[in-house]
Amino acid sequence: MAAEESVVVSNDFALNNNKENGVVSASSNDPNAISSVIPGWFSEISPMWPGEAHSLKVEKILFQGKSEYQNVTVFQSSTYGKVLVLDGVIQLTERDECAYQEMITHLPLCSIPNPKKVLVIGGGDGGVLREVARHSSVEKIDICEIDKMVIDVSKQFFPDVAVGYEDKRVTLHVGDGVAFLKAVPEGTYDAVIVDSSDPIGPAKELFEKPFFESVARALRPGGVVCTQAESIWLHMHIIEDIVENCRQIFKGSVNYAWTTVPTYPSGMIGFMLCSTEGPVVDFKHPVNPIDENDSQHSASPLKFYNSELHTAAFSLPSFAKKAIGSKTN
Amino acid sequence: MAAEESVVVSNDFALNNNKENGVVSASSNDPNAISSVIPGWFSEISPMWPGEAHSLKVEKILFQGKSEYQNVTVFQSSTYGKVLVLDGVIQLTERDECAYQEMITHLPLCSIPNPKKVLVIGGGDGGVLREVARHSSVEKIDICEIDKMVIDVSKQFFPDVAVGYEDKRVTLHVGDGVAFLKAVPEGTYDAVIVDSSDPIGPAKELFEKPFFESVARALRPGGVVCTQAESIWLHMHIIEDIVENCRQIFKGSVNYAWTTVPTYPSGMIGFMLCSTEGPVVDFKHPVNPIDENDSQHSASPLKFYNSELHTAAFSLPSFAKKAIGSKTN
Repeated sequence: MAAEESVVVSNDFALNNNKENGVVSASSNDPNAISSVIPGWFSEISPMWPGEAHSLKVEKILFQGKSEYQNVTVFQSSTYGKVLVLDGVIQLTERDECAYQEMITHLPLCSIPNPKKVLVIGGGDGGVLREVARHSSVEKIDICEIDKMVIDVSKQFFPDVAVGYEDKRVTLHVGDGVAFLKAVPEGTYDAVIVDSSDPIGPAKELFEKPFFESVARALRPGGVVCTQAESIWLHMHIIEDIVENCRQIFKGSVNYAWTTVPTYPSGMIGFMLCSTEGPVVDFKHPVNPIDENDSQHSASPLKFYNSELHTAAFSLPSFAKKAIGSKTN
Repeated sequence: MAAEESVVVSNDFALNNNKENGVVSASSNDPNAISSVIPGWFSEISPMWPGEAHSLKVEKILFQGKSEYQNVTVFQSSTYGKVLVLDGVIQLTERDECAYQEMITHLPLCSIPNPKKVLVIGGGDGGVLREVARHSSVEKIDICEIDKMVIDVSKQFFPDVAVGYEDKRVTLHVGDGVAFLKAVPEGTYDAVIVDSSDPIGPAKELFEKPFFESVARALRPGGVVCTQAESIWLHMHIIEDIVENCRQIFKGSVNYAWTTVPTYPSGMIGFMLCSTEGPVVDFKHPVNPIDENDSQHSASPLKFYNSELHTAAFSLPSFAKKAIGSKTN
């Protein structure tokens, strides 16, 4: 039998094609993408990672909605706990969210002494807030999330993640992060964490140069930014562009780190870590270690992050080093 | 619509269920596992990682066969190059094989000075041989692979991987690795690399204590072994057992390292690295660095491995450190 004969399109679309109920996959952004699933499973098919898909078995769909910005889905998976999906792309699962939330937060905050004012752009699920709150030096945590539905859904279905909102230092701003940053007085923050979705959809601007300029302006001298920055296996060209933009804007240091996250495409995700001109920030050697037993503001200990892993996260495979090594610290 | 209503079983099994043509998924080992696919895609469904599946889009099936030991499939994927599948589980893709082959080989060989005699158990595709051959100190490379079909298929479809067989220092033994090791004179090898499939199927014995005892006996004092050792996200209990066994048998050091491999379940794979009593081996600090421009015996430069990544590979997330940290170096 030739393979071609078996390439058929199923009519058993279980989730992705059920547009009436507000559930569409990321492939709906691309009319040419194949939109099919393993029946009873959620399949993550996107033009951002053509030719591959990760699927999770669905026990029960808990929520389906369409906000002003995107499609929001929550389902109970059979082995990864509850799962939050935006526009067909997995944002977090209860089983592995620790890796992303802890790394995107502590990589920047453990790299500077006594962070006091922190801004989170995106991160509507509250997980980054939960992690920022572990730092007792922090006095003020602003969060600017564009999509209220993400916040509400997280509070309802992911209480262990959205617990971050309960910290008294948190101020929630529902709105556009780009506009919010423009209105921020210069030099306000010690750290900005950009917890965005992919550069297709509402987060597009968060990967562009004007946004990085606003971030740099909002940071104090020697302040730090950490942004979600895709996978070296899938998006090396996007990463090269981001590095190039950051190199022009952040006059302190520019670094790339990565971590394992099983339910993200290619099983990993990267971060851009940059600092503004001022006191030198050596991201690879954390000066503000966080002790897993010293989390006054959090009920649960760290599951993933530690100082050794912090340093290791900046070691890149040779192919990635070749592409961006000369432009990072 | 309740999710349950959409859980249907497709009859469009494109690849996995086509047993007549010798193509079955790993799920065929478990009659209760769901055996379904995205039509036109290869889906990796296994009781080893229930509730999740990684799928690759198939351009063309290039080979389907059933050897004495397992089902062997090769297909052209649309974005990962050619793919080798054994019993429904992806063994390598042309796009990311560099990560696994380079790490499983250079982690042990760069940790000891002047490795001369190396044994590879499994690794029938030849990729580990290709990597061992980069080391100019090596005089003899034995490989013991149980399944001749894997060797033949690799030579036919993966010439850039099977190129390892062309090195004059290589001696191929087709047979059972366990029996081969028992017949090896004590203290023969500087390094043994166990490039096995998962502990379900023909590789089962390669994860058990008697096998590790044979490996230790075949190594010189201060010799090293590196074995494929699953994912900390999926198989922490298997890893704990392996660590426990190794702790009892290898009186030098016992270490766990990991690397990113997008097409392996959870996007990563780990390695056990142990040494026998004798000259101390500090795996975390390579003493025998390999220069990517100094590969006399290989046409292509290293794509993935470098000394910095070597050290970083031993840094574990806190949940894994908690489980095995006290039993590893």
